[in-house]
Amino acid sequence: MTYEQLFEQIRLKKSFLCVGLDPDIAKMPKFFEGYDEPLYEFNKAIIAATHEFAIAYKPNLAFYECHGAEGWRQLERTVQCIRMNYPELFIIADAKRGDIGNTSKMYAKAFFENMNVNAVTVAPYMGEDSVKPFLEFPDKWVILLALTSNKGADDFQHIVNVDGENRLYQEVLTKSKNWGNKGNIMYVVGATQAEKLTEIRQIVPDHFLLVPGVGAQGGSLKEAAKHGMNNSCGLIVNSSREILYAGEGIKFAEAVKDVAWKEYQQPMEKFLTEKGLL
Amino acid sequence: MTYEQLFEQIRLKKSFLCVGLDPDIAKMPKFFEGYDEPLYEFNKAIIAATHEFAIAYKPNLAFYECHGAEGWRQLERTVQCIRMNYPELFIIADAKRGDIGNTSKMYAKAFFENMNVNAVTVAPYMGEDSVKPFLEFPDKWVILLALTSNKGADDFQHIVNVDGENRLYQEVLTKSKNWGNKGNIMYVVGATQAEKLTEIRQIVPDHFLLVPGVGAQGGSLKEAAKHGMNNSCGLIVNSSREILYAGEGIKFAEAVKDVAWKEYQQPMEKFLTEKGLL
Repeated sequence: MTYEQLFEQIRLKKSFLCVGLDPDIAKMPKFFEGYDEPLYEFNKAIIAATHEFAIAYKPNLAFYECHGAEGWRQLERTVQCIRMNYPELFIIADAKRGDIGNTSKMYAKAFFENMNVNAVTVAPYMGEDSVKPFLEFPDKWVILLALTSNKGADDFQHIVNVDGENRLYQEVLTKSKNWGNKGNIMYVVGATQAEKLTEIRQIVPDHFLLVPGVGAQGGSLKEAAKHGMNNSCGLIVNSSREILYAGEGIKFAEAVKDVAWKEYQQPMEKFLTEKGLL
Repeated sequence: MTYEQLFEQIRLKKSFLCVGLDPDIAKMPKFFEGYDEPLYEFNKAIIAATHEFAIAYKPNLAFYECHGAEGWRQLERTVQCIRMNYPELFIIADAKRGDIGNTSKMYAKAFFENMNVNAVTVAPYMGEDSVKPFLEFPDKWVILLALTSNKGADDFQHIVNVDGENRLYQEVLTKSKNWGNKGNIMYVVGATQAEKLTEIRQIVPDHFLLVPGVGAQGGSLKEAAKHGMNNSCGLIVNSSREILYAGEGIKFAEAVKDVAWKEYQQPMEKFLTEKGLL
């Protein structure tokens, strides 16, 4: 999917919501335990309930890998299900990969060829040759960690470089934007760091930002939209737990739908309208 | 496995060799294409040929994930094979994972409970809460990226912190050594960075270092041993391609064995003897 197609989807759905597909059997309604493929069945129900209000889905690999090869199979089935039924959706493998060039190339094949997702999250620590192999696939995207939503973001991401006074996350943005372009690189900026978005927009005015941390982690959708939106929206805001586990029992999907619609799509439509993008 | 048990294995085998299990169907002898489980069968042959000379095996996840769920299954089979036949071996999942605490916990379960490896490589970019969940499993290890063997290591790992003049990789070592101890944290330091080992040993004198980059990537075993060895050896030196693809045809395993033995175990025995550790 291209930059323009992504913006078009945002305008069509009046939403920039990404739903994090992090299926945790301990948290989903009890009856899923009876299924052979509980992760897949839960995801299918979540996607059916939310696809009108979302432009993207983001399975986090950890929630599948903790079930071994069988977890991977259910993730592959989930991606196939989205591809077949809702081909317009943007799928992000939240994998936070990154390795020496030779090896990153294998990861890129795993996600872009074998699993056929649109984007992969990548960790920047190992530098350019760990990221470049992902950028060689046409219409596929790298989403590079810049400023993350967790407490540990303070440990290293804010280190100030003696040479130029950039903080590490600013260094990551400044260097990496030249490895690709706004059509194949996005950045992760946690919603808990919304006050930093204005300054981040000075470094990467046009790039899309994937913003996790809204909801359960305490970030504000309004603040993210206020400080992060650009003229192509430029934001994909993710919510996982707050949507996935909104409901209980056999009718859980109705509560899930309500949260995606009322807590996310409706305010997003308002922010897009105020910005003059609809 | 504990720190002491690991050193004991090194003394018994007179080796600190780790063999990287990075099976690439395009590079292995042609007859493996005929097997239903070529990755597993190739690994089994490599392990049979090298286990006398190695103390550890390090499958890199990328080489399995590029075959999807089926690749994961063959990796699980490989780990089970080592566990059943050679329980003394140290198994490292080279996964370079790392995510917010809640999610890192799932990765830790994936590798330590489900797959039952001894250690996982972890990327430090997201800080303490992305690493801590891995440290909560008794006798399991985090191997944190510090100074990697690739060219891209220069992009961010050498940034000098204005506050204290530490470089980023030194900051990673200094901070993270307090998150655990020498019995549950090791560090990745590329053999291509051997001249830095002396200085790294001042920060982490007792910790084990996992040293990749010997062989195909150009690093020197001799230099790594000279600058990195401590009184418990403190080194696990990895070789992947140079060992895996040493031989061709039906008798390929003989060449594989010869390289592991003559190019690695024999000089390692010499270095351990010179250091007075045998």
